[in-house]
Amino acid sequence: MKRTLGVCYYPEHWLETQWAEDAARMAKLGLTWVRIGEFAWSRMEPEPGRYDWAWLDRAIDTLGKAGLKVVLGTPTATPPRWMIDRHPDMVALDKDGKPRGFGSRRHYCFSHKGYRTECAKIVTALAERYGKNPHVAAWQTDNEYACHATTLSYSKAATEAFRDWLAQKYQSPDALNRGWGNVFWSMEYRDFNEIGLPNLTVTEPNPSHVMDFRRFASDEVASFNRLQTEILRKHSPYPIAHNYMGAITEFDHFATGADLDIASWDSYPLGFLSDRVPADPEHKRRFVRQGDPDFQAFHHDLYRAVGRGRWWIMEQQPGPVNWAPYNPDPLPGMARLWAWEAFAHGAEAVCYFRWRQAPFAQEQMHAGLLRPDSAPAQAFGEAETVAKELAAMPDVGTTKADVALIFDYASDWAWEIQPQGRGFSYFWLVFHIYKGLRRLGLNVDILPPDTGDLSAYKLVLAPGLFTLSDPLKAALVAHKGTSLLGPRTNSKTPNFSIPVPLPPNLPGLDARIARVESLPPDCPVPLTEGGALINWREKLEGSATVVEAAEDGWPALVAAEKLHYLAGWPDDTTLARILQRACAAEGIETDPLPEGLRRRDTATHRFLFNYNPVPADWGGVSIPPAGVHWSAL
Amino acid sequence: MKRTLGVCYYPEHWLETQWAEDAARMAKLGLTWVRIGEFAWSRMEPEPGRYDWAWLDRAIDTLGKAGLKVVLGTPTATPPRWMIDRHPDMVALDKDGKPRGFGSRRHYCFSHKGYRTECAKIVTALAERYGKNPHVAAWQTDNEYACHATTLSYSKAATEAFRDWLAQKYQSPDALNRGWGNVFWSMEYRDFNEIGLPNLTVTEPNPSHVMDFRRFASDEVASFNRLQTEILRKHSPYPIAHNYMGAITEFDHFATGADLDIASWDSYPLGFLSDRVPADPEHKRRFVRQGDPDFQAFHHDLYRAVGRGRWWIMEQQPGPVNWAPYNPDPLPGMARLWAWEAFAHGAEAVCYFRWRQAPFAQEQMHAGLLRPDSAPAQAFGEAETVAKELAAMPDVGTTKADVALIFDYASDWAWEIQPQGRGFSYFWLVFHIYKGLRRLGLNVDILPPDTGDLSAYKLVLAPGLFTLSDPLKAALVAHKGTSLLGPRTNSKTPNFSIPVPLPPNLPGLDARIARVESLPPDCPVPLTEGGALINWREKLEGSATVVEAAEDGWPALVAAEKLHYLAGWPDDTTLARILQRACAAEGIETDPLPEGLRRRDTATHRFLFNYNPVPADWGGVSIPPAGVHWSAL
Amino acid sequence: MKRTLGVCYYPEHWLETQWAEDAARMAKLGLTWVRIGEFAWSRMEPEPGRYDWAWLDRAIDTLGKAGLKVVLGTPTATPPRWMIDRHPDMVALDKDGKPRGFGSRRHYCFSHKGYRTECAKIVTALAERYGKNPHVAAWQTDNEYACHATTLSYSKAATEAFRDWLAQKYQSPDALNRGWGNVFWSMEYRDFNEIGLPNLTVTEPNPSHVMDFRRFASDEVASFNRLQTEILRKHSPYPIAHNYMGAITEFDHFATGADLDIASWDSYPLGFLSDRVPADPEHKRRFVRQGDPDFQAFHHDLYRAVGRGRWWIMEQQPGPVNWAPYNPDPLPGMARLWAWEAFAHGAEAVCYFRWRQAPFAQEQMHAGLLRPDSAPAQAFGEAETVAKELAAMPDVGTTKADVALIFDYASDWAWEIQPQGRGFSYFWLVFHIYKGLRRLGLNVDILPPDTGDLSAYKLVLAPGLFTLSDPLKAALVAHKGTSLLGPRTNSKTPNFSIPVPLPPNLPGLDARIARVESLPPDCPVPLTEGGALINWREKLEGSATVVEAAEDGWPALVAAEKLHYLAGWPDDTTLARILQRACAAEGIETDPLPEGLRRRDTATHRFLFNYNPVPADWGGVSIPPAGVHWSAL
Repeated sequence: MKRTLGVCYYPEHWLETQWAEDAARMAKLGLTWVRIGEFAWSRMEPEPGRYDWAWLDRAIDTLGKAGLKVVLGTPTATPPRWMIDRHPDMVALDKDGKPRGFGSRRHYCFSHKGYRTECAKIVTALAERYGKNPHVAAWQTDNEYACHATTLSYSKAATEAFRDWLAQKYQSPDALNRGWGNVFWSMEYRDFNEIGLPNLTVTEPNPSHVMDFRRFASDEVASFNRLQTEILRKHSPYPIAHNYMGAITEFDHFATGADLDIASWDSYPLGFLSDRVPADPEHKRRFVRQGDPDFQAFHHDLYRAVGRGRWWIMEQQPGPVNWAPYNPDPLPGMARLWAWEAFAHGAEAVCYFRWRQAPFAQEQMHAGLLRPDSAPAQAFGEAETVAKELAAMPDVGTTKADVALIFDYASDWAWEIQPQGRGFSYFWLVFHIYKGLRRLGLNVDILPPDTGDLSAYKLVLAPGLFTLSDPLKAALVAHKGTSLLGPRTNSKTPNFSIPVPLPPNLPGLDARIARVESLPPDCPVPLTEGGALINWREKLEGSATVVEAAEDGWPALVAAEKLHYLAGWPDDTTLARILQRACAAEGIETDPLPEGLRRRDTATHRFLFNYNPVPADWGGVSIPPAGVHWSAL
Repeated sequence: MKRTLGVCYYPEHWLETQWAEDAARMAKLGLTWVRIGEFAWSRMEPEPGRYDWAWLDRAIDTLGKAGLKVVLGTPTATPPRWMIDRHPDMVALDKDGKPRGFGSRRHYCFSHKGYRTECAKIVTALAERYGKNPHVAAWQTDNEYACHATTLSYSKAATEAFRDWLAQKYQSPDALNRGWGNVFWSMEYRDFNEIGLPNLTVTEPNPSHVMDFRRFASDEVASFNRLQTEILRKHSPYPIAHNYMGAITEFDHFATGADLDIASWDSYPLGFLSDRVPADPEHKRRFVRQGDPDFQAFHHDLYRAVGRGRWWIMEQQPGPVNWAPYNPDPLPGMARLWAWEAFAHGAEAVCYFRWRQAPFAQEQMHAGLLRPDSAPAQAFGEAETVAKELAAMPDVGTTKADVALIFDYASDWAWEIQPQGRGFSYFWLVFHIYKGLRRLGLNVDILPPDTGDLSAYKLVLAPGLFTLSDPLKAALVAHKGTSLLGPRTNSKTPNFSIPVPLPPNLPGLDARIARVESLPPDCPVPLTEGGALINWREKLEGSATVVEAAEDGWPALVAAEKLHYLAGWPDDTTLARILQRACAAEGIETDPLPEGLRRRDTATHRFLFNYNPVPADWGGVSIPPAGVHWSAL
Repeated sequence: MKRTLGVCYYPEHWLETQWAEDAARMAKLGLTWVRIGEFAWSRMEPEPGRYDWAWLDRAIDTLGKAGLKVVLGTPTATPPRWMIDRHPDMVALDKDGKPRGFGSRRHYCFSHKGYRTECAKIVTALAERYGKNPHVAAWQTDNEYACHATTLSYSKAATEAFRDWLAQKYQSPDALNRGWGNVFWSMEYRDFNEIGLPNLTVTEPNPSHVMDFRRFASDEVASFNRLQTEILRKHSPYPIAHNYMGAITEFDHFATGADLDIASWDSYPLGFLSDRVPADPEHKRRFVRQGDPDFQAFHHDLYRAVGRGRWWIMEQQPGPVNWAPYNPDPLPGMARLWAWEAFAHGAEAVCYFRWRQAPFAQEQMHAGLLRPDSAPAQAFGEAETVAKELAAMPDVGTTKADVALIFDYASDWAWEIQPQGRGFSYFWLVFHIYKGLRRLGLNVDILPPDTGDLSAYKLVLAPGLFTLSDPLKAALVAHKGTSLLGPRTNSKTPNFSIPVPLPPNLPGLDARIARVESLPPDCPVPLTEGGALINWREKLEGSATVVEAAEDGWPALVAAEKLHYLAGWPDDTTLARILQRACAAEGIETDPLPEGLRRRDTATHRFLFNYNPVPADWGGVSIPPAGVHWSAL
């Protein structure tokens, strides 16, 4: 396969007289893709029912004739102002019950039936008109589902849809009461219509209630997306993508992904480091202009799984952005490094966001490949370099890894609902494990929680899984390699109760969690072999072999043959030791890397990425700051 | 008297087939009491007016026949879902005007007349049925009044009740305007119906307005409770208790306590240390598995006063809880130590919360004496030890102290309304003084603010009292021992104005507060004898003897004979010196204790408690971590 | 001109029997002015339409006969309770849509037409009665516009008025859509009535939308004030003032000031240091009892500009206040120092707030010249000293400075809307530059952003200006001295877009901002000559001379002849170097002062102010803590 570059473009933002020149420059730069349309509803349908396609016809024609392939977005993330008049209650309500106002984006409620009908109409019209247009080559549904915390709506529409969803699931209020344990505080319902959303309660609501609301809300995203994919498929043969965001877990991307052909994500390494990656100040300072060395790779591996192998970067940060707490300039070279890291992880395409910096409105301080005055910005030349390098290089392919890491969106909801200790996060636990693997130079495959076949992997990790699915449980039983589960893995029933017999209930492993404790950051629990458990640990009992123990005697890691259970959150030292031991047992070569240097092997090449602001020497190679080095395997 | 143990139990949470075995195990463990019923309204009255007592009859019968005595709770803290349909406006409104939703607990407004009628009905039904049941031996009203900040409601019901309360108090709007000083910002009212609640104002509301609202809200709790006690007494001879919480001061416990026979409180030492005790990080780290060494003792002494001598622990933390920021496992032995600390302070009974950890709903991560799989948890064995020790030991009795400390709920409201310096808290000022006393090995009696007889005490402390009541003023005049008042003591009129002549206006003490200042934490004011005043100090003038002074010459402690006034918040050094001087003057023996070791003398025994995670040596005795040592006096 | 002292007085707070004695003491103390009336609406008009002037007649008469001149305030900041019944929707709504309740002050919405009518009525009545009263000598409109963040209202009245304002400005929705770039996220409007206020959006609203809302809101303050000044001028020859607050920029004071004769401000040095001056902890600790050494001077210079030369202190802190996070006692002498700092900056009058500390209501802990018991408080004697010193001294005059600093309220709105890096504040950038100038011993004139003549100044600074006005641009072109612009100066069009060609677009300076970056506090960018840029920097390109550069090669300061552009936020070291170089070039003598010592030259005298808690030696003079030293020039 040919790896390709692209860009996001908004013809409606510019004078039509500019389009042809823009298109020609894109093509000359070596770009293949141009994504358009996803925010242009007010231009496609300026008044209810009156469509204006002429401008879009001309834009697609201009781009296509320049040799570019168009990714066409459905505009449903930004319903125009008139939609509010037609459906005043289509807006989502926030947790406090306040309506989310018009004037930015993503103000719709996923559960509003009237809005869904409007979406079906515009998508149908778009699909009918462009579904077989020769310049269009792919679709994007909506834009960044869940961005700005928009999955959950506390509206009347959501309440009613949630009741229907519960009635389908439980069939009787009694079954729901038993499932949720509503007897606990006299919370029993006599009718599904008595059930509300779990906001504004005096103290915490029932976690089972919240968990079902989270599942429901995730299902609403999937069905909203499916409404569009079904229409698009009816009218068009082109593959369909959605552009996900980083570190956003409000809905199950695997479920939505099942209706799509391509997973894509919007990668803003500096924005994410400033805004959401938890790290100590020194780490944030060191990588302020490069981004976290693992955050992108983690998402690449995750979205490769969500896309069942097919995935893109739909938006790649090209320079300073506008939305993070601090918005530094990337180190020269990073716009190239980030693209190559994506290709090394199997990306089919990397599209920069955006072609030209818009001088107006919310994102006017967001860099593009061009400045507002159309002069090339820093990333323009780096994109050009990547385009030339791609042209000169055979496809690097992708590769299977020896190590698999399970990722489950529902588990992130579960521990957000019940952290039990301040800040316990499933997402960051998994990312912590991922970083540990990547610091050892390992390729990692991320797998969904219902994976039924692990035979391709020597080492499988499943930390923090709320419940073990039946297929995964069976696959673990059949697995011949090493597996490492815990902490918290399989510690709840699907109804969000503690199972009896006590968890983790792993086949063949005689271990029970007698109790758990969460700990402040300044109270690590030292282990006998060095390092410590932090944040969280569990008191295990049972006859499983104790592989590691705390100084106070509590088991820290137990095993039955190759099945391991980790009874806490390991610090870096502990994690490295445990992973190296597991790799050694499975004959997986590890390559502990210096700070900020990362490695990724493809089918044909070994890539080294230097995220440091200083040169890195490794394996006889010296790599400059922001440098990429590859060698054939 | 025989000190006893008990447990909280929820038969409605478990299969009926399990009850008899549970009851037998409780009895075998040595428990006397089983508290039930307080969250079971939806089972007692599944539909409006339709009662179901059969299950509760059987539960009480089963427990009673096993030899246990039942404490039966009124279920009014958790009205069922149908109540909302009958009285949609019965929910409290928060400060922002948002209704507090169904789905957890304590969502009712104390002022809603319809809800009060419903409460009277269920309490009457309960009292009629079980008021003379031979297995029932005590009542509990509601559950943890004020928990989750539920005293104040900004509802229509509360507004109307507040207006009535004000009309009763002031009789005319003019009197109210004068009392509050409403001329200040043209805030004058022409009619009681013009008066609103003091929320949502642009800047701070009139403190007199807020103070009256706080008094009103406290009175509402008392009358809500009295509604129940009057019904219970009509039908039942058994004593009535309520279970208060720690560090909760939203209502006047003395006022509510006047209608009860027994005060009880719910003691969660680790949860409280993590969640609410202000302390430096090192202190929090050191005592993370033991709890603050004084927090429990303070509440024991406080609730002994609230209960006029009769008090219990109604809920005792047995292991990790679920609700604090961090929830560590208690050090082995603490579930025993905490019980003995309570008995040494005169508790009649200590009930662990709860029998078996519930695997479902909000508190599924809250430990019990049993694990969810019915195996004994850590505290089970410790409770067993305590039961045996109690059986082997004569009653330790209680004892009067030489030192009295006044505690006044209204003063906590006052300084919360007008801290004048960030974080000035009456509660923590009094606790600070209490800690200073306890570090000297002293027994302390806490007294209500209308105490009229101090003759039993050699040393009386009354820091921070908003106003001095007439009885207390008279008692201080008559007091032959040393008294120590201030800072801020008697600095306001009951209407929340500064009195003229200027405070503190203490009989015989020529001292006036010329002005006050609040200080940032990094600006201590050094005293000539060492130590400093922190947070707060007052500039005194007058001819009273200056006992201590600041380096800048302001008096820090003044006296007229044995009546002392402290003109600021003393740091630990200053506090120790002042207390030791006062004790020496009164011939009270002090015994400055090492960190984390605490002492309590009863009528018959001296108890030493080691709250440290390491052994403590004292007076020739070595006490292990979490250890208790007693010797006959 | 004779500099004078005054005091704020509330006859309605005191028994009428007290007035004469108070007035006599004021006169004896040497006070000239007494400000009254601004919170007394409920006494002036106890019921709608029924006026009661008798008490006010007598109060003015009593004060006037004692020889005092009255400043009479309009009472519109505190509409009485009955106003809410007449106009329930007159209250402002906060950003969340919550109504701002009665019970404190400033609860009105500036856009409410009914409330404006009520204000016109009371002001007319007041002006008719007292407009020519011989004891009245000046007016004050309302009180502290914008205090407690009261400029912005999200009410229906504001929404409708905003739509009218927009329609006037843009004339067509299409013009507005183009101006704001509403095509960006399908935010286009078809009618002005579709436009809402920019609150409650899902993510940030369009900055152009917010900027116009801020301009509108500022205009509403100006027209509200003008409504009053027009009435007052019709009936009275006396000058009109308003009392502004410190560090409050919600509305354009220059615009409001254009309708006034005198600018005045309320100076609370300790409250401001505790509450709003950003500084490191050591600075806050050192000046805890003195206030920031530059904060008052900055406002003096600012309000001298707002008042076009005529300005007062309407409220001067006399002792501890009640409203800051911490409220320490001023160092003895500060109430004198603050007054002299004001006079040295040209104040016509300094009025202490307030005569006697009110023992009731919200400000009962706010010191006055008298204590609640009428004894003199600390500041009483200091005011007496100032009065005597004023009497003994010829007028010190004021003086023009060599250095001018532009201040623009709209720029503060702009960068609050679009900080681009956390905490970027225009106000504190300008203050940072001001401090740099004052540390060099310089007099500074602050000028409005539409200044058209800079010929009086050798050095002109204009940091952070959102846009350059045409007059200022012309004045800069004509300016023969040195000018220093940037960072961010002129970086936007009036519509809040990035201009093309790229900013700063300064005449004769070939420099363009290729891109900008915001930086965390721990990421300074070192410069080759020492020091660093912090928080913010810009990448410049163009042929302008590079005067300073960063170590990574980016220009930091560029120039074309005497026009300089600074490409970032300078740290103290860098700022001092740049300012000293500029002063040297212009022959301006600098006098780098020791910490906490400040200097101000008037037409006749050189003043030195010691803000330190320790003595300061300078130029052969030793000045005690809180001391003032002057010498004839």
